[in-house]
Amino acid sequence: MHPCTSIAEQKRIEEILEKTVAPLPSFEMREKSPPPPESNSLEFMYFYKSLEKDQRLEFLEKLSHDFGVDHRWVSDLASKLLDAQVRDVATVLQVEDRLRYSLTPRYRHLLSHISRVPGGVKFLVDLRADLLEFTSSKSSDSTHLRDLNSTLKSLLSEWFSVGLLRLERITWQSPCEILQKISQYEAVHPVRNWTDLKRRVGSYRRCYAFTHASMPGEPLVVLHVALTEEIANNIQGIVREFATLDVDEDVNKISAAIFYSISSTQAGLQGVELGNYLIKRVVRELQSEFPHISQFSSLSPIPGFSSWLQGALSQQKKEGRALELLSEEEWKEVEEVTGAAPGASTLEALRRLISTSDWIHSERLIHTLEPVLMRLCAWYLYGEKRRGYALNPVANFHLQNGATMWRLNWQADTSPRGIANSCGIMVNYRYFLQETGTNSAAYLHNRVIKASEQVLGLVSQFQMNSKL
Amino acid sequence: MHPCTSIAEQKRIEEILEKTVAPLPSFEMREKSPPPPESNSLEFMYFYKSLEKDQRLEFLEKLSHDFGVDHRWVSDLASKLLDAQVRDVATVLQVEDRLRYSLTPRYRHLLSHISRVPGGVKFLVDLRADLLEFTSSKSSDSTHLRDLNSTLKSLLSEWFSVGLLRLERITWQSPCEILQKISQYEAVHPVRNWTDLKRRVGSYRRCYAFTHASMPGEPLVVLHVALTEEIANNIQGIVREFATLDVDEDVNKISAAIFYSISSTQAGLQGVELGNYLIKRVVRELQSEFPHISQFSSLSPIPGFSSWLQGALSQQKKEGRALELLSEEEWKEVEEVTGAAPGASTLEALRRLISTSDWIHSERLIHTLEPVLMRLCAWYLYGEKRRGYALNPVANFHLQNGATMWRLNWQADTSPRGIANSCGIMVNYRYFLQETGTNSAAYLHNRVIKASEQVLGLVSQFQMNSKL
Amino acid sequence: MHPCTSIAEQKRIEEILEKTVAPLPSFEMREKSPPPPESNSLEFMYFYKSLEKDQRLEFLEKLSHDFGVDHRWVSDLASKLLDAQVRDVATVLQVEDRLRYSLTPRYRHLLSHISRVPGGVKFLVDLRADLLEFTSSKSSDSTHLRDLNSTLKSLLSEWFSVGLLRLERITWQSPCEILQKISQYEAVHPVRNWTDLKRRVGSYRRCYAFTHASMPGEPLVVLHVALTEEIANNIQGIVREFATLDVDEDVNKISAAIFYSISSTQAGLQGVELGNYLIKRVVRELQSEFPHISQFSSLSPIPGFSSWLQGALSQQKKEGRALELLSEEEWKEVEEVTGAAPGASTLEALRRLISTSDWIHSERLIHTLEPVLMRLCAWYLYGEKRRGYALNPVANFHLQNGATMWRLNWQADTSPRGIANSCGIMVNYRYFLQETGTNSAAYLHNRVIKASEQVLGLVSQFQMNSKL
Amino acid sequence: MHPCTSIAEQKRIEEILEKTVAPLPSFEMREKSPPPPESNSLEFMYFYKSLEKDQRLEFLEKLSHDFGVDHRWVSDLASKLLDAQVRDVATVLQVEDRLRYSLTPRYRHLLSHISRVPGGVKFLVDLRADLLEFTSSKSSDSTHLRDLNSTLKSLLSEWFSVGLLRLERITWQSPCEILQKISQYEAVHPVRNWTDLKRRVGSYRRCYAFTHASMPGEPLVVLHVALTEEIANNIQGIVREFATLDVDEDVNKISAAIFYSISSTQAGLQGVELGNYLIKRVVRELQSEFPHISQFSSLSPIPGFSSWLQGALSQQKKEGRALELLSEEEWKEVEEVTGAAPGASTLEALRRLISTSDWIHSERLIHTLEPVLMRLCAWYLYGEKRRGYALNPVANFHLQNGATMWRLNWQADTSPRGIANSCGIMVNYRYFLQETGTNSAAYLHNRVIKASEQVLGLVSQFQMNSKL
Repeated sequence: MHPCTSIAEQKRIEEILEKTVAPLPSFEMREKSPPPPESNSLEFMYFYKSLEKDQRLEFLEKLSHDFGVDHRWVSDLASKLLDAQVRDVATVLQVEDRLRYSLTPRYRHLLSHISRVPGGVKFLVDLRADLLEFTSSKSSDSTHLRDLNSTLKSLLSEWFSVGLLRLERITWQSPCEILQKISQYEAVHPVRNWTDLKRRVGSYRRCYAFTHASMPGEPLVVLHVALTEEIANNIQGIVREFATLDVDEDVNKISAAIFYSISSTQAGLQGVELGNYLIKRVVRELQSEFPHISQFSSLSPIPGFSSWLQGALSQQKKEGRALELLSEEEWKEVEEVTGAAPGASTLEALRRLISTSDWIHSERLIHTLEPVLMRLCAWYLYGEKRRGYALNPVANFHLQNGATMWRLNWQADTSPRGIANSCGIMVNYRYFLQETGTNSAAYLHNRVIKASEQVLGLVSQFQMNSKL
Repeated sequence: MHPCTSIAEQKRIEEILEKTVAPLPSFEMREKSPPPPESNSLEFMYFYKSLEKDQRLEFLEKLSHDFGVDHRWVSDLASKLLDAQVRDVATVLQVEDRLRYSLTPRYRHLLSHISRVPGGVKFLVDLRADLLEFTSSKSSDSTHLRDLNSTLKSLLSEWFSVGLLRLERITWQSPCEILQKISQYEAVHPVRNWTDLKRRVGSYRRCYAFTHASMPGEPLVVLHVALTEEIANNIQGIVREFATLDVDEDVNKISAAIFYSISSTQAGLQGVELGNYLIKRVVRELQSEFPHISQFSSLSPIPGFSSWLQGALSQQKKEGRALELLSEEEWKEVEEVTGAAPGASTLEALRRLISTSDWIHSERLIHTLEPVLMRLCAWYLYGEKRRGYALNPVANFHLQNGATMWRLNWQADTSPRGIANSCGIMVNYRYFLQETGTNSAAYLHNRVIKASEQVLGLVSQFQMNSKL
Repeated sequence: MHPCTSIAEQKRIEEILEKTVAPLPSFEMREKSPPPPESNSLEFMYFYKSLEKDQRLEFLEKLSHDFGVDHRWVSDLASKLLDAQVRDVATVLQVEDRLRYSLTPRYRHLLSHISRVPGGVKFLVDLRADLLEFTSSKSSDSTHLRDLNSTLKSLLSEWFSVGLLRLERITWQSPCEILQKISQYEAVHPVRNWTDLKRRVGSYRRCYAFTHASMPGEPLVVLHVALTEEIANNIQGIVREFATLDVDEDVNKISAAIFYSISSTQAGLQGVELGNYLIKRVVRELQSEFPHISQFSSLSPIPGFSSWLQGALSQQKKEGRALELLSEEEWKEVEEVTGAAPGASTLEALRRLISTSDWIHSERLIHTLEPVLMRLCAWYLYGEKRRGYALNPVANFHLQNGATMWRLNWQADTSPRGIANSCGIMVNYRYFLQETGTNSAAYLHNRVIKASEQVLGLVSQFQMNSKL
Repeated sequence: MHPCTSIAEQKRIEEILEKTVAPLPSFEMREKSPPPPESNSLEFMYFYKSLEKDQRLEFLEKLSHDFGVDHRWVSDLASKLLDAQVRDVATVLQVEDRLRYSLTPRYRHLLSHISRVPGGVKFLVDLRADLLEFTSSKSSDSTHLRDLNSTLKSLLSEWFSVGLLRLERITWQSPCEILQKISQYEAVHPVRNWTDLKRRVGSYRRCYAFTHASMPGEPLVVLHVALTEEIANNIQGIVREFATLDVDEDVNKISAAIFYSISSTQAGLQGVELGNYLIKRVVRELQSEFPHISQFSSLSPIPGFSSWLQGALSQQKKEGRALELLSEEEWKEVEEVTGAAPGASTLEALRRLISTSDWIHSERLIHTLEPVLMRLCAWYLYGEKRRGYALNPVANFHLQNGATMWRLNWQADTSPRGIANSCGIMVNYRYFLQETGTNSAAYLHNRVIKASEQVLGLVSQFQMNSKL
């Protein structure tokens, strides 16, 4: 029993669920059952939205626990199936069919029906966002919740199947409502004002989004592209460049497409692949608009690098292996520049240095730190793993899509945010269209990361210098 | 082995399937597997479209038989599930999850991927039309085909979920492409020319269709509505009335909405409920446009009545119970009118009479036959069943939706087609909005038909007169 | 007094005019006067539309006569202007300004105000169609009517200025309403059915129209284009060719754009240049879609050639110069083929021949007549004039636009209509884009027709053979 | 000769004009002349845009002086007209026609042709803005410039005739481009941010604009409306009220429509009536959306009141009649409140008071000043005239439209701008739809201002108190 909900509230939750979650029809009647009245769906939605966070958790636990699969039925059919093995194949198929049906949770139909009510799909997307929060925070025993989540995810995957998504190019002529959302959702390189926003949809830029018939006016995933002469190595040159804002595009100056920001907007669609498909659709779109474009690449942030580095330095200090990350010469330079005493305190000085953005005002520090931070960053991206896949989520995303880890760029994002996140380093994940399929499979099945010589070079420098 | 396909062809079919239908990923990798390349889907589609009917059947048999469920895996998991019963619930849930996954046919993912390719959804709808043809014609052992059909149907049901459909009102300003299709698809009361068509979308008429994002420009189900003062009892007054074609609608003259034609256009969407939802959406649409409309009713054809009647007469003759359908007096009238000799030959005369449309030119015959045909028709609609549900498919459709069998109308469709199908009789299925839910459930669960007094009166007249 | 209108009717006409045609404000108040109430315009329109043809004529005569320019005021200002000549230029300008204002007919403001009422512009276009009919039929003394016509025309010219027209490409996705009108308005090569119509907007075809904001859904002038490999010499190959109806266009097969039909739809816009501008806009449109297209040409009918030829033959017969049109050899051939007696009766035989379409079934006749009819037709187009400009209206239109009379095509329109109008001959007016300006000026100012060698060759053959 | 343009530049100007301004065709050829090549228009536009302000003035002076009317021709025709008086009416009409034609300035055709070029209309609107600036600043002898201006204005009036304008409702779904412009152009109550802007197009608000086919995406005149329960007396309650921003509108709470801001955006369309027509169209639009709305009123600023008041006070002081504007009692109160010495220095104190916005923080001052400022303001609006019409331009605009000066509102705009402009007072001009025609005519012809009792009462209080 949850301490936070009163007995009366629990009672009410039970009543609502009993009333709105219709029983699964029998196998024979499964095609013949009339849909429950729409009011069921509406009542369910209305009630859920009126609940506080804690109550929602309890509500979903009850839903997933009491209105899921009928386990006895399933096990009966499992027995029957084993018996049927000796019989003809038609019988086996028939029992399998029943078994499959019996494995449908009772709440699945309700979810389906809710999707038909105006606003229903959006409701379910938001409900799943709650679910993900609950299951990840482990605030509860979540065995059943995970089942509910997986059922809901599989439904959402069908509804948000790529065939049902609409690619929209966002321009300055798009509805203000959409543009304001684009502006809000842009988490990677925040939009500051109208001119900033206009820049993102102006000359030499493209902005695309997937939208969906059942959530009109709501961009689900947004991709910002810059059209450039060469693969960009600096983000300010893209988001803070206004000289070409209103000029006509000169096709001859366009030979690369840079994906410089991609944002998913719906927490509840986690795991439903949209970003990957959006990139592929946009590539096709750009190829048809500019048949001669041959270079496709991201210019991506490296969130987490700085804090990983801080962690690594602390760790080293603790373990007394403080000096392994840099070469002797490099340590000396740091000492000189920072005026720190040799040894552990240099390490401390270095840590302090990179915890602020002051160093970027010193040409000498910039020069000194470049080789160090670049090889550390290369290692962070290439060598640090979680369950065998790249630890950095942006890297993981692009590698899954089949991109190549192509180039680390020093001083690529000198905004405070860029310095704070990744010491100003950004990375290009390049899409060689002929290879993405192979790369993706190699990464997913064998955890092989495709990387360029520059990256591999930095990684081996790291390995020579460091004993992390 | 099919006699109609050569060994080379069979070989080719096997190759294509092996190449394009990717194996099901392991349970652990199910979320991590990259999608197969789009070219798989395209190759599958291209190959299938190039096949002849016979080859298609073989292709689908092979697909459904060799690329379905891995039965051994399923039975292994079924055993595990039985073992798990003694363990904790988390284990049970986990095994159920695996079992559910193992019951996914291998071809399911291919179908999903095809839906993402341009034209893919339409391809699958058409493929299912083939499937339905094959399974219904029983031209083959169809156990596995039925499994394939059921998998495909469940996918289509999600993709064509009502939330993803778009209601479009078709007007004279709609694209010509759509209007031409509306014209082609109108099977109930064929459209003859531009003026006919303009009439269907002009004043005092509405035409609505559901369309779907992945099949643009393709109306899936079309509903024609007439806005009238009273519930219409005659179809010519609707489709052949041009006086009000271009006048402005007078809201005060509108107090009933008559659904006089509903057509599904995609054979492959059989069993995916669209018509029912379309009627409900249109009712809501009309209520918001004309808040004072209170009467909603169909004016429906009765396909099959004439041939049923012919059958019944033949049967009676064969069984020597020829005279039971009409009262003595009625038989006498028929004798007089037709000049036939009494007895069996009168019955023969009656049969001949209703097999042509000549009788509608005789006031006397019209008068004589009215009570007879009306009560026979009422019985046909209300009393004749198939698996407990109304034999007449139009009746079955509206009764499932919760309509009431409200009024039989004599001389309601005097077109040759109308006379040939149902001796000119049409029927109103009326939608009392407060009752449709209850009616639908009563019909589907208990096979109870809700009918008006007129209909019930005719039925009991039939029961008194006939001993069918 | 018109015999057809009663005194009461005349009275009513006078009342309405007095009421609705506001006096011209004084020169000083011309900017300060409030617009007359909209009801004036509506009453005027309503009244006019309720009138019969005869009454309309009287109404317009009265309007133009009694509500035109104040002649006394004009002549007073003319005197003043002459007096002012000796004074400073400012005074001259001022009096000129007043004089210009005084020359504004009183009804001009009403016309302006009508244009602001919904449906007003269309009303004025239709009113002008009436006016043109009245002035051309000379059913009345039309001095004042012509003034009214010229005022109205100048207003329409501003409202229908090309800058205010919208070019619309008509496709199979265009509103049915538009396509039906396109179908109706196509006078050159009538559209027979849906497939015909679909052909005109399908692959390798383009259909463009100008529309105007104040007459929505109404195409004002329509241009049909065929995209071909070579300049077409036959119209059936364009309007009766269905092989490529649904295929994808192959850009490499397109090197010529053939204007095969242009229709103005509004009689009331006569003299307001639209067709010329439409051709030019479409050329620009096509050039941007197909940068490599280099050949632009019409394939035009020659209405009036047959009847001109009949007239010429009659004339010759009457004047006893019957034999001059054909060479001796040719006459002999005609005699042989028709079996006519030599001399005048051969001419009669020839006349009869070309008054039906029978001759096109005889290969021999076709062969015999080709040189004769081709050179006569070339002369008709090139040599026959009205006020110095080409007599044939289609020729005059394209020559004004700066086209070159490029090629006569034998057996180019073998439809009954084509044979009847021009013995099956059609002509290409070719648009050499670099020359149209010069050609147009030469034609309009100096009445010089630019023609190809083929045409000039035929003309000189005619001149050698005939003494017309 | 202008000192600021070199001889070379003058030469160039003359060349361009000679080249691009085609001579007027002869009267006979006026319908037959081919249009000059588009390149003329483009060259003219390009050249003009490249000029500096001073050069533009010279350019326009030359254009208007050397390419205007042929005065000799006009005077010849004026003589002929006088001669013709003795002849028949047909001759008179004919000469009048020629005279009218001769009064067409040569540059008129060029202007017409420019309007047909893409961007041409916008160019002419901007050129006229220049013209208006030049003629108003009297930086030059402008007799000919005024002629050019008047020709251009008459052309613009036809092109921007209300029938050719499109009413657009601006919503949050409108293109961002439009909304940004709406935001920029809003001069009356400036928009501060996205939320402000969203408020103007959200619930209980309407925003309408006229746009024109030849200037797409450019709102010409914008009207902001608030839907309220009563006629609003305070602007902050409209533009700073966010409580109802996203709620659904309750029709029952709407019984008044308040026009709280109207802005013309194109300086070059001065004198072309748009605002008046926009208000009328919007009234019609609102009546059809809310048939029960009966109150239409503006809530208008009173620009110029404060500075007029300052002027009046200064004037009085100078003339020693300082004390006449307020009653003795009122002066005493001002003395007390301000602590000023009696007499002239009180007046000075008062002047200083209202020259800042400090007084609105004192309840007592607000109370003291209310009767004084209200009656002075009423007089300013009602009594102060320019050429007989209301001096205040906003008043003049609404009175021309036929509105009634209905209510002055104290503390209606307490923004710094509102206090600075009009001591926070605003005024409602109310539109009684049945009376606007009469009111407008009375105002324009007889300079009669229709005002409510409140206003007239304040005016007579003023007249009793003041001897201005």
